[in-house]
Amino acid sequence: MLKLGIIGTNWISQQFVQAAVSSKRYALHSVYSRRQSSATEFIEESMQDNVQSYTHLEEFFQDKQLEVVYIASPNALHFEQAKQAILNGKHVIVEKPAFSNPAEMNEIIDLANLHKVCYFEGARNIHEHNFQVLKNQLPTLNQIMGASFTYMKYSSRYDDVLAGDVPNIFSLEFSGGALMDLGVYPIYAAVGLFGQPQTVEYYAQKIRTGVDGSGYGILHYDGFDVSVHFGKTADSFAPSEIYLTDGTIVLDGINVITSATQTNRQTKTEATLALQKAHENPLYEEACAFADLLTSIDKAKTATQYEELVELSRSVNLVLYEMRQKAGIHFPADQKMN
Amino acid sequence: MLKLGIIGTNWISQQFVQAAVSSKRYALHSVYSRRQSSATEFIEESMQDNVQSYTHLEEFFQDKQLEVVYIASPNALHFEQAKQAILNGKHVIVEKPAFSNPAEMNEIIDLANLHKVCYFEGARNIHEHNFQVLKNQLPTLNQIMGASFTYMKYSSRYDDVLAGDVPNIFSLEFSGGALMDLGVYPIYAAVGLFGQPQTVEYYAQKIRTGVDGSGYGILHYDGFDVSVHFGKTADSFAPSEIYLTDGTIVLDGINVITSATQTNRQTKTEATLALQKAHENPLYEEACAFADLLTSIDKAKTATQYEELVELSRSVNLVLYEMRQKAGIHFPADQKMN
Repeated sequence: MLKLGIIGTNWISQQFVQAAVSSKRYALHSVYSRRQSSATEFIEESMQDNVQSYTHLEEFFQDKQLEVVYIASPNALHFEQAKQAILNGKHVIVEKPAFSNPAEMNEIIDLANLHKVCYFEGARNIHEHNFQVLKNQLPTLNQIMGASFTYMKYSSRYDDVLAGDVPNIFSLEFSGGALMDLGVYPIYAAVGLFGQPQTVEYYAQKIRTGVDGSGYGILHYDGFDVSVHFGKTADSFAPSEIYLTDGTIVLDGINVITSATQTNRQTKTEATLALQKAHENPLYEEACAFADLLTSIDKAKTATQYEELVELSRSVNLVLYEMRQKAGIHFPADQKMN
Repeated sequence: MLKLGIIGTNWISQQFVQAAVSSKRYALHSVYSRRQSSATEFIEESMQDNVQSYTHLEEFFQDKQLEVVYIASPNALHFEQAKQAILNGKHVIVEKPAFSNPAEMNEIIDLANLHKVCYFEGARNIHEHNFQVLKNQLPTLNQIMGASFTYMKYSSRYDDVLAGDVPNIFSLEFSGGALMDLGVYPIYAAVGLFGQPQTVEYYAQKIRTGVDGSGYGILHYDGFDVSVHFGKTADSFAPSEIYLTDGTIVLDGINVITSATQTNRQTKTEATLALQKAHENPLYEEACAFADLLTSIDKAKTATQYEELVELSRSVNLVLYEMRQKAGIHFPADQKMN
């Protein structure tokens, strides 16, 4: 059982704890919060026994038994917390988007390698069984004509923006915005399916706080383009699609795939992809994937899989960064890029 | 009854003749084709009596009784034929896309004004009742958050391209390609609903013949962007959407609208727009619209409506041209732009 520590006592941390516990691969060991009451409340809600609470991050990390840290604080805090965790010899699972820019990403990857611990980005969608079914179904890249991936959902926090506030998720200071928060899903899917794009474009609709409320991106590949459309200021009901030389794959969504059909123009047939009903906890599959890797990382095959996952995370981070540059969105966290 | 002459004996000309006749506003008067057999066959198929056929364009235009010419030849021929028609004092209806570039467009508009005849672009979709319902339903521009318009349909002529041929519709010589052939629909809709964009982008997937097989465009407006996606090398099943400050309008298509719903986030309601069942002939509504304008053009209100339609056509032409420039797609017909 992997001894799990939590940074960030919000709903997604609680969801990860429940996923981790139900996988029977982790035990909740400790929770860090600046406020004791938040930590206590989180532990009570988790229904787990013998959980330590910490209000000082250094003490939390010095706990010798702690093995894996799940970090779901505001985006801009991920880097320092992950760094500190690694320096203390802990594995880290960092909620997506893991880091603000390539400088942070590269430093963490190097540091994790140096300290012989693992770094994972909690990019739920690419770990799901149904995403793997889709990936296995795809023909070779020369049969891909393009794709359009959409994930656009109104955020109730945008009400706060309209009321004059600056929620973390919509702040430059905390590395927020639509690209970082929702765009990361279609971009993970695109890079996961088609690899690193050659160049990218991004047309962002900036909102009052300076971040993007929504935007259109184009990822240029050799021979085809992938469009990504995402936003937190309106709702889209459009499916996502992959265009093939002989047909089209229609997905009900790209952040989570629950239905998928593939049309074939020649045969005039429509086939349903063999998807599974997703686990009731959307983080279950990533929790299992990380546990699998952590418990067999000394095997060559696992090490290769781990390396691929790290490189995918690095690629996505670079795409996010290049897209932000195109749209002129700069975070305080980017200063170390200079 | 407006005496109608036809240039181009293909299926769309026949469809326009049927629409015109069934509107009881036009009589088919004459047909021009380089080949007598094509003209004869077209006239027989039209089931109309007393129709003249011509194999010399100059004679066709010199027919004193001829009042309106419908031009549905390959795109690159529209300009010279429309010019000749206008110089002979005929009104012209030019199938979309009317002209290859702004130089041609501006010359025709000036010439039509000078000769006191009307010029219309056969952009079916904006003349449809359901498009007007949508337009009337829209709030003011400051409540528009953006839109995504898609029209992507595999063309059987692309099979010919893959086999090594260059069909007119996929040739630079005849001003073809996905933008000109299908992109014109979403762009007409965008310019018709939101006005002339400030700037545009276009990312085209060029095919062997040098034209675009598909592409993604972005039309930048003050405060929002509209994406257009179209293609002839694959099929999309995605709806088109308009994002509002308080909800989303979902259209089953933008080339033709047969169902439309408007969600409201605050009231959590979904309303169906009051659409009409379209006329069985998709060109019926444009044929009526042009007849209405032609038969009352001496009235001030009609003159204003006509002027608006001409300016819309000019705007769309400019958008198409600027998009092509962004994608580096140049037609032989563009040489007069220099």
